[in-house]
Amino acid sequence: MSRGGKEQPRGMSRRELLRAVGAAGAGFALGAGGTALSTGTLAARPRREIRDGARDQRVPFYGVHQAGIATPQQEHLHFAAFDLTTKSLEDVRELMRAWTEAGARMCAGEPAGEENTSPFMPPEDTGEALGLRPARLTLTFGFGPTLFEKAGEDRFGIKDSRPEALVEIPPMPGDALEEDSCGGDLGVQACADDPQVAFHAVRNLARIARGTAVMRWSQLGFGRTASTSREQSTPRNLMGFKDGTANIKAEDEELMRRYVWVARGDGPAWMENGTYLVARRIRMFIEVWDRVPLTEQERSIGRHKYSGAPIGAEHEFDPVDLEARDENGDPLIPENSHVRLARENEEQRILRRGYSFTDGMDRERGQLDAGLFFICFQRDPRRQFIPLQRRLARNDLLNEYIRHTGSAIFACPPGAHRGGYVGQILLEGA
Amino acid sequence: MSRGGKEQPRGMSRRELLRAVGAAGAGFALGAGGTALSTGTLAARPRREIRDGARDQRVPFYGVHQAGIATPQQEHLHFAAFDLTTKSLEDVRELMRAWTEAGARMCAGEPAGEENTSPFMPPEDTGEALGLRPARLTLTFGFGPTLFEKAGEDRFGIKDSRPEALVEIPPMPGDALEEDSCGGDLGVQACADDPQVAFHAVRNLARIARGTAVMRWSQLGFGRTASTSREQSTPRNLMGFKDGTANIKAEDEELMRRYVWVARGDGPAWMENGTYLVARRIRMFIEVWDRVPLTEQERSIGRHKYSGAPIGAEHEFDPVDLEARDENGDPLIPENSHVRLARENEEQRILRRGYSFTDGMDRERGQLDAGLFFICFQRDPRRQFIPLQRRLARNDLLNEYIRHTGSAIFACPPGAHRGGYVGQILLEGA
Repeated sequence: MSRGGKEQPRGMSRRELLRAVGAAGAGFALGAGGTALSTGTLAARPRREIRDGARDQRVPFYGVHQAGIATPQQEHLHFAAFDLTTKSLEDVRELMRAWTEAGARMCAGEPAGEENTSPFMPPEDTGEALGLRPARLTLTFGFGPTLFEKAGEDRFGIKDSRPEALVEIPPMPGDALEEDSCGGDLGVQACADDPQVAFHAVRNLARIARGTAVMRWSQLGFGRTASTSREQSTPRNLMGFKDGTANIKAEDEELMRRYVWVARGDGPAWMENGTYLVARRIRMFIEVWDRVPLTEQERSIGRHKYSGAPIGAEHEFDPVDLEARDENGDPLIPENSHVRLARENEEQRILRRGYSFTDGMDRERGQLDAGLFFICFQRDPRRQFIPLQRRLARNDLLNEYIRHTGSAIFACPPGAHRGGYVGQILLEGA
Repeated sequence: MSRGGKEQPRGMSRRELLRAVGAAGAGFALGAGGTALSTGTLAARPRREIRDGARDQRVPFYGVHQAGIATPQQEHLHFAAFDLTTKSLEDVRELMRAWTEAGARMCAGEPAGEENTSPFMPPEDTGEALGLRPARLTLTFGFGPTLFEKAGEDRFGIKDSRPEALVEIPPMPGDALEEDSCGGDLGVQACADDPQVAFHAVRNLARIARGTAVMRWSQLGFGRTASTSREQSTPRNLMGFKDGTANIKAEDEELMRRYVWVARGDGPAWMENGTYLVARRIRMFIEVWDRVPLTEQERSIGRHKYSGAPIGAEHEFDPVDLEARDENGDPLIPENSHVRLARENEEQRILRRGYSFTDGMDRERGQLDAGLFFICFQRDPRRQFIPLQRRLARNDLLNEYIRHTGSAIFACPPGAHRGGYVGQILLEGA
C-alpha cells in the first residue's frame, strides 16, 4: 500500500487511507518505544486522531518512571483520592502490592484479578470493562502529606521519610476550596482513551482497598486540556482557547530531567525518578465568560482565540514577544494576561496534564458546574507550581472567571519493576 | 484491496486491515442510509469498533423523525432539562427556532452561529469544539408536561394540544426521587462519540436560551448501556452485565412502527412521527453489588455474567426460556429476576438508549455516586414504560442494589424539515 495510493478502495482518499492504516495500530507504537510515523505527519492531523487508533494499545505499567506522566496524554480521566483507615504499615504495604498487581493487569487489558473459580464468591473483577480494549490505560499512584503526618501524628512511622518538597499547598488569594475536594493520603490518576476503562480501574482499586482505605473524593475528566507529546495537537479548554501550547513535551528529555523527574540528591532516595503531582479543581464561570467580547477574552489570555497565536502574531507556535507594543506604546500582550504571568519565570515550568470536567448543575447559581481539573507534574512544587500559582492568583485577568475549589498534592514514587510494587522503597524502609 | 489481503502492509493482519478500512468511514454510512458491510461482519467486532471510525461522520439533523432515537447509539451523552422563564408563546417559538438552527449547524460540525464579525461582541460559539469532528452528534428535543400546564395554569395557551400519552410518571414503589433531578419544561438529549462535542452542544443551547429558559438539571453519561442497531455489539453496564441484549433494533422497522413512533390517530397531529422519552436516573449501589457472589448476581439478572446468555443457555442471543426448570423443578430463570419480569408482557417493549454515569462521591455513604441514566423511547408510556416499571419496582430482585433518584418525561415531536423548526406544528397552533 504505497503513498501513491494505487490500491486504495473506491471512495477513500489517500489521506483517509493513511489515517486508516495508522488507526489500525500498524503504524506507530506508543509508550517507551519510538514512533514509526514521523512527527510531522502526526502533527498535521486533527486533534483526536491518535486517540482513534489507540484503543488497542497498551502502555507498559512497569518501568523506571510510573506511566501516565510522560505518556502522551489520554482523553479521559478518573482521579480518586483515598484516606487510609488502617493504622498498620503492613496494611499499607499490602494495599500498594495489591494495587500494583491489579493495576498492571488492568493496564494490560485484563481483569483486575484471576478469574474466580467459585460461583459462591464475588467476582474478582467488576466486569464492566470485559470486552473493552486497554485504551492506553495508565495508573499513577501518589502519597499525600497526611500519609507521613496527620494532626502531628507519625501514623505509620515513616515521617522521617517525608520529602521536604512534599509541602501542603499554601492558601492562595481567591481560593474557595471545599474540604471535600482536597487532600488525601493516597492519590490515583487513571487515564485512558475510553472513559469506562478509567472508571473501571478506579472502581476496582476502591474495591480492593476495602477495609484499608476509603475514597475521599473523585473526579471525572473528559477531554484533555494539554498535550504532552509532539505527536499531539493542542486541545481547547472550556474557555474555547487552545491550552498547553507551551507545555513541556515528553520528548524533550532535557526538560523532563530539569523540571519533572526527581533526581538523585533532590531528597530521599525513594523519590528518585519520581515526581510531584499537584491537582487543582478550577471551576470556570463559563456563562459569564460566554458573554465577554472576543477582544476581552483574548486580552485576558494573551492569545488569539481561533489561531492560538500570541496577540499580534499569526500562528500558534509563534514566539511570545512580551516586549511587543502597539502604536500607542502599550504592550500587545497585556500586563496581567495569563500568558505573560505564566511566563515570567522560566524556572517555574511544569508538565501540565489537566482535563475539562462538568459535574452537572451548580443549583445555587443555576449554572453548569464545569471547568478545568488542573494536574501538573514537577520536580519540586516549592520552586515550580507554588510560586507560579501565587503570582497568577494575585494578578491574572482570568481570575474574574475562575475559582479554585479543590487542591491536592501527592509524591509519585518511581515506577515499579515486575515483582515489586509502587512505593516499595519507601514502605519497606530502605 | 481484496479479502485475500495480498496488498496488506507488513505487520498488519487481514482483520486489522479490514477494520482499518471500515474505520476510515469508507465502508459504511450511518444515519438514514443503509450499511455496506454485512451485519455479520460487524456483529463479530469488539464493542467499540464502530465508534472509532465514527468521529468524521455526521448524522443528518433534519428528517421525518428527530435524530438520536433510531440513530445507532453513540458513546457519550449530555442530557439537560430546561425550565422556561418567559410567559410568551412567541418566545418559546423563537427559542425552538434558534435551537433548531444552532442544532443543525452543530450536528454538521459547524459552530453554533455565524462567525461574529465584531471583536467587541461575545463570540457566537463558545469555541471548545473548534477543530473537533462532528462525532455523530445528535440533538433530540422534547416537551415536558409542564410546558402545557403547570400548577393548573395554561401557561402558553397550548393546554388543549397536550397529548393524553404525556402523563407525569406516577410514583413507583421504592422511588427516592430528588426534585432537582426531575421534570423540566424542555428536554435536550445530546449524544456524540466525543464527550466534548456533546458538552459543547448543550452549553451553546443553554447560552442561546438565556433570557427565555434556564437549565434545571443536567446529566453526563459515558458508555452506552444499550445497542440500538444490529451493527453494534451489546455493551456492559456498571453491574458488569451485558445490557440491552433484547433491545429493539432500529433496523426492525416493524417494531419501530409498533413500539416507538407515534402514528396518525394516536393523539394530536403534531406528534405524528414523534415519540415519548422517559428518563430515569438509577443509582446503583455498586459497592454492595461487588460483594455479591456471582451466582446471586446472575440470579438477580436472569442471565450469565460473562456470556450474557440466559441462565441455563450458552450464548447471548439464545432464546430466553421462561419455562425451563432445573432438576428440582425450580425455574432456571428465577421468578423475580429482571429478565423474567421485563419480558412478562410483549406489548410493553421499549427502545432503550441509556448511559452509565458517575457523579463523583456520595459523601454520606462514602461511595461512588454511579449508575445508569436510563432513557427509553416509546409510542405510549401509559402502555409501555409505566406498567413495565411498576412491575419491576414491585418485584425485581435488582431493587436491592438500585434506587431511582431522577425521573422525567418528554414528548419528542417529529423531525423538522429544512427551513422549519422542531415543534413548529405544535407551537404555531396547527
